Amino acid sequence: MKSNFEKLLKITNKIADLHYANSLLSWDQECYMPSKGSRYRAQQMATLSGLAHELSTSQEYEDLLKRCNEDKNLNSIEKRNVELLLKDYEKAKKLSTEFVQRLSIATSRAFQAWIGARRSNDFKAFVPELENMLSIQKEKAEIYGYEEHIYNALINDYEEGAKVSDLDILFSQVSSKLKPLMDKIASSKQVEDGFMYQNFAKDAQWNYGIEILKQLGYDMEAGRQDISEHPFSTSFSPEDVRVTTRVNENNLYDMLWSCIHEGGHALYEQGLSAEQYGLPCGSAVSLGIHESQSRFYENNIGRSFAFWQLNFDKLKNTFPQQLAKVDLQKFYEAVNIVKPSLIRTDADELSYHFHIMIRYELEKKMLEGSLQVKELKDAWNAAYKEYLNVDVPSDKEGVLQDVHWSHGGFGYFPTYSLGSFYAAQFEAKMKQDIPSFEEDIQANDFTKILSWLRGNIHQHGRFYNSEELCKNATGEGLNFDYFLKYSEEKYKKIYQFS
Amino acid sequence: MKSNFEKLLKITNKIADLHYANSLLSWDQECYMPSKGSRYRAQQMATLSGLAHELSTSQEYEDLLKRCNEDKNLNSIEKRNVELLLKDYEKAKKLSTEFVQRLSIATSRAFQAWIGARRSNDFKAFVPELENMLSIQKEKAEIYGYEEHIYNALINDYEEGAKVSDLDILFSQVSSKLKPLMDKIASSKQVEDGFMYQNFAKDAQWNYGIEILKQLGYDMEAGRQDISEHPFSTSFSPEDVRVTTRVNENNLYDMLWSCIHEGGHALYEQGLSAEQYGLPCGSAVSLGIHESQSRFYENNIGRSFAFWQLNFDKLKNTFPQQLAKVDLQKFYEAVNIVKPSLIRTDADELSYHFHIMIRYELEKKMLEGSLQVKELKDAWNAAYKEYLNVDVPSDKEGVLQDVHWSHGGFGYFPTYSLGSFYAAQFEAKMKQDIPSFEEDIQANDFTKILSWLRGNIHQHGRFYNSEELCKNATGEGLNFDYFLKYSEEKYKKIYQFS
Repeated sequence: MKSNFEKLLKITNKIADLHYANSLLSWDQECYMPSKGSRYRAQQMATLSGLAHELSTSQEYEDLLKRCNEDKNLNSIEKRNVELLLKDYEKAKKLSTEFVQRLSIATSRAFQAWIGARRSNDFKAFVPELENMLSIQKEKAEIYGYEEHIYNALINDYEEGAKVSDLDILFSQVSSKLKPLMDKIASSKQVEDGFMYQNFAKDAQWNYGIEILKQLGYDMEAGRQDISEHPFSTSFSPEDVRVTTRVNENNLYDMLWSCIHEGGHALYEQGLSAEQYGLPCGSAVSLGIHESQSRFYENNIGRSFAFWQLNFDKLKNTFPQQLAKVDLQKFYEAVNIVKPSLIRTDADELSYHFHIMIRYELEKKMLEGSLQVKELKDAWNAAYKEYLNVDVPSDKEGVLQDVHWSHGGFGYFPTYSLGSFYAAQFEAKMKQDIPSFEEDIQANDFTKILSWLRGNIHQHGRFYNSEELCKNATGEGLNFDYFLKYSEEKYKKIYQFS
Repeated sequence: MKSNFEKLLKITNKIADLHYANSLLSWDQECYMPSKGSRYRAQQMATLSGLAHELSTSQEYEDLLKRCNEDKNLNSIEKRNVELLLKDYEKAKKLSTEFVQRLSIATSRAFQAWIGARRSNDFKAFVPELENMLSIQKEKAEIYGYEEHIYNALINDYEEGAKVSDLDILFSQVSSKLKPLMDKIASSKQVEDGFMYQNFAKDAQWNYGIEILKQLGYDMEAGRQDISEHPFSTSFSPEDVRVTTRVNENNLYDMLWSCIHEGGHALYEQGLSAEQYGLPCGSAVSLGIHESQSRFYENNIGRSFAFWQLNFDKLKNTFPQQLAKVDLQKFYEAVNIVKPSLIRTDADELSYHFHIMIRYELEKKMLEGSLQVKELKDAWNAAYKEYLNVDVPSDKEGVLQDVHWSHGGFGYFPTYSLGSFYAAQFEAKMKQDIPSFEEDIQANDFTKILSWLRGNIHQHGRFYNSEELCKNATGEGLNFDYFLKYSEEKYKKIYQFS
């Protein structure tokens, strides 16, 4: 006779199968689907989601979860899986079908309004739907319940356990400690990166990117890269984890670092336990930790001097004409240029966190009620002037640039910054644990680094939460000082100040 | 309040969504999936099939079907949909879950055994599993029930209404009327096609194939072509119908005609009614009719003199060196070379039907019990000697060449020949209905031809059965003489006999 846990596994496997099948439909939609395919593709995806939802809210599933939760014979991983599944179930159950449908309608209306407003470059056209979305998000927070601050209820969907009280401290450090660093950079020497904007043949860029992915340890037998409008990574099991990139023939930055960034996400997913398929212990722990993996590879590795020791020669061989007058030092400086600008996704490693801080502060105020949606644009523009000293010339390049709020993603943005901060902290510990850290990178040998990440992060899935994972791996909880120290040391050398 | 028919549509849509999602998973598996992805892909596909099966055998579905069947307010298309859905349902219900599972296990075992036997080139290793498969197929035929001949029960799954009594007459004509034609060809002039086996760059072949597909009217906004090991076409709705091809750098036949053949299948699927999504009137009527579309384009169009009037120049421009010494007549003769050989899938337009006839006779005898599985190899080799005058040097090139029997596809093969015979009959009528038939093809204008097929075949789905469709379109049921006449006229000219 089958145990309750085995019966439970049958359901979690089915839910995962539907979820991953849907991810493939979505991947295909972004990469290959012909335009007329969209009508029935949308319907097919809705059907698979609906069936997954039915299974994961069924009485049978609840009963099994409760019986497993009382089962004394489960091992520690099984126990943790049941505990988290039950928690997820109880959280999902709080939202009524009526609410979920209302949220889904509001999301699709807000998204359409955002598209239209962006096209006409007119924030006002987005206001009514954003107001509606905000009010639904507030309602969701009240249904979930929270301590201290309404924001805590929402960020919990992306970064379990994150709190406004901690985030406020983090971002106050961005402001108080990163701002002076930015100011020093601004008044130091100029870095030149014009050569990154020449013509670089698509195929050559593509092949170079593939080689980099392989170097980093991305398993091409359990993944592949394709082209899509916006780069992303997705997975259909830890044994089929895909990345996408885009290639801009007139900009060498675009493909190369999006490829390394998505590669970092994919290495995490490939490192999850395939035996824990569909279970919390086989799933990524949080968006912040996920982003720590992509940013570690993108910035700590991909923008390091060591990484380009061998790779720059290869790049020069690939584009001999374009890079004829560029040496390693010049290239290294260019890929680390710090230049406050308008668009988050184009931002450098440092000013990036001001983009995030601005969004965090604004969405927090909107949720608190101290900022009205109709005042958002002015507040946005003022914040960009204050923190990045740039004038916002249009809504499209300002408050309308990100899709997140139209999707209902309030509380999502901070996870991007958390990712960088975790990455710096992990790197500091890795340098202690792997004495050959620098030399390994110089030699394009990423075996030990990947194995550190596999052992400390990837393999655990959600067995530990983010904070525990960070403590186990580094001996302490998230500490902004690592990112500050990393940044100071790096940019002091590049911009030559003391 | 929703009508029963609307409620029924909700279920048929869900079943179709699951079915088409599964087709995408399968397409991806053939075209893009990395090797390690296979384990969970198999599980995901089994889950989607299982859910579709649950829906299509549910009590709710049966009740709705029966209520709709008594509904006097349905229009003729709705009525026909309900009638066919009910028929399919009742047929499927005859097979018990126990039987379906047994069949599924037998299929996967027979398939594995076939793979192994093929690898070791040893038919004996396949015998036990093929015997098991044959006995299950006999059992299935008995469960379905049949008139006249056990074979009729099985072919019905692929070609509704087809009967041994008709097929026997058809294939006796292959033997009595096509054989003399083949003999004449064999004793006439030699056709030379060595130039088709030079080096033809992959990209150039690919681009040429895409242009041909577009010419024929394949809608690239509702489809795309990719590479797979074995060419196939598949669809996820009439608005997303894809083809695949393979490109052999040392053989110009391979890509070009597989591309046109799959294009013919795809034109049929693109011509089905998108509004009848998931319903019988939005589905292809039979494998024979499906094959008539692919073979019409592949042979009647793609191997016609008219088709190459303009296209040969384009081909010469694409491969100027390789085709320098080839003129249109020589090329036309080469692509119509008749040369009895061992492998069905490489066979020419005429000897192809002997390959089919041999399989038809053998599987019929096995089902009747007049041929034992263990005698199959000798019977196969004898038949090839008798009908095609070739000696079979190995099981791999003989009785083990096709996957069909290992998949349980008894009764499947004749649909390939039916396709060619229908195609010839349709072409004869088209020539009457479209006076500019030849000139249109010469000018690469396929508008009227496609519109004839859309109006007479594609748009009807399963509203009419194959026989009705053929009668409505051509004024009579399937008549082998059209194929004979088409063949005689064509090959007389090429091989210059009277």
